[in-house]
Amino acid sequence: MKIAVKKSILSANDRVAGENRARLDAAGVLAVNLMASPGAGKTSVILATAERLPVEVRPGVIEGDLASRIDADRVAGRGIPVVQINTGGGCHLDAPMVRSALAQLPLDAMEVLFIENVGNLICPAEFDLGAHLAVVIASAPEGHDKPYKYPGMFARADAVVLNKADLLDVFAFDLDDFRRGVALVNRKAPIFVLSCRTADGLGVWMDWMLDRQRDAAARGEQR
Amino acid sequence: MKIAVKKSILSANDRVAGENRARLDAAGVLAVNLMASPGAGKTSVILATAERLPVEVRPGVIEGDLASRIDADRVAGRGIPVVQINTGGGCHLDAPMVRSALAQLPLDAMEVLFIENVGNLICPAEFDLGAHLAVVIASAPEGHDKPYKYPGMFARADAVVLNKADLLDVFAFDLDDFRRGVALVNRKAPIFVLSCRTADGLGVWMDWMLDRQRDAAARGEQR
Repeated sequence: MKIAVKKSILSANDRVAGENRARLDAAGVLAVNLMASPGAGKTSVILATAERLPVEVRPGVIEGDLASRIDADRVAGRGIPVVQINTGGGCHLDAPMVRSALAQLPLDAMEVLFIENVGNLICPAEFDLGAHLAVVIASAPEGHDKPYKYPGMFARADAVVLNKADLLDVFAFDLDDFRRGVALVNRKAPIFVLSCRTADGLGVWMDWMLDRQRDAAARGEQR
Repeated sequence: MKIAVKKSILSANDRVAGENRARLDAAGVLAVNLMASPGAGKTSVILATAERLPVEVRPGVIEGDLASRIDADRVAGRGIPVVQINTGGGCHLDAPMVRSALAQLPLDAMEVLFIENVGNLICPAEFDLGAHLAVVIASAPEGHDKPYKYPGMFARADAVVLNKADLLDVFAFDLDDFRRGVALVNRKAPIFVLSCRTADGLGVWMDWMLDRQRDAAARGEQR
């Protein structure tokens, strides 16, 4: 019974996720679902990326949190269109929440949408939001064993960002072991080692993301 | 229907949690449920605490993870009795999992049991395991805004540990703002600011925990 209910919830979610994706495709917007532990630096990656975008690539943001407007206020402070979703205790975003947020965003004046999921390295991986890319952000202070302990999240990622990399030495972070852990469950996802504080490594991540953004823009033009 | 199913799962869990607690009480064992984000330092707090216990207070550990035996191996390497629970993707421990682990532990040769929950600042808070204390471990790299963003977890805590406090300055951690955030949802939980690396602050935490351990031992003697 438990399984049957879960299955019907997931298939309802997938239907709305498909609608979200079609809507984003029609607008030529690339949507990126950013998932991470609490405090890994999701908002920092979004802001560091947004401020380095070419002028013709305009960002928008959906912020997901159980409570508070802290992250949305940070984003809005940079003049970026943003919608805050409060899940009221829920441990992940779902497609209907994103649908509601899309209705409040100027999709025609955006080329890339960053969706910051709830800080949780487990549950968000199971819910398709209608985004084009799933990006997992790990961080040096969390330790290099995370891919071994949370394989489901890393298995589903299109890319892995390792943030706070200026502190790898401080935390005796074993980068080779981290890479091996990711490769165990995911042989295709690139790993971008970067620091939002020093900006080291941001360029390689931006190039990869902007390649996908151009694909999304082309999809929009074909409509 | 979704709510009804969840309710019946929770009440079944609470029944087993009560049985676990009775079993621990009979053995005079204090059980501490440690909850935190991935990488906050749950295992480090357990090991730093265990090695400072008076000789007459013998520790045992239950390690909860989605996958891997990494943490159990660390604990076993110190000669401490430990059982690893792998949830196979599940985002929290529950009381039946702990019941199975208790059957494998030498309760009569232990005075304190540390239960390391799955790394998740949301879902574990909803499941009573039969422990006597719920302790939330936050860490400096995660940032001072966590109590505002994850109020449910902090609201249910009997104590809050702030780990990696030797790095407060590196992360521009605003301790006053953190304390205000905890106080908004929880006016009774003490906050222990400490560092497992430097050992600063561990003594105050140990004193608080050992006070509760003596109460548990007295419960066991009354049986």
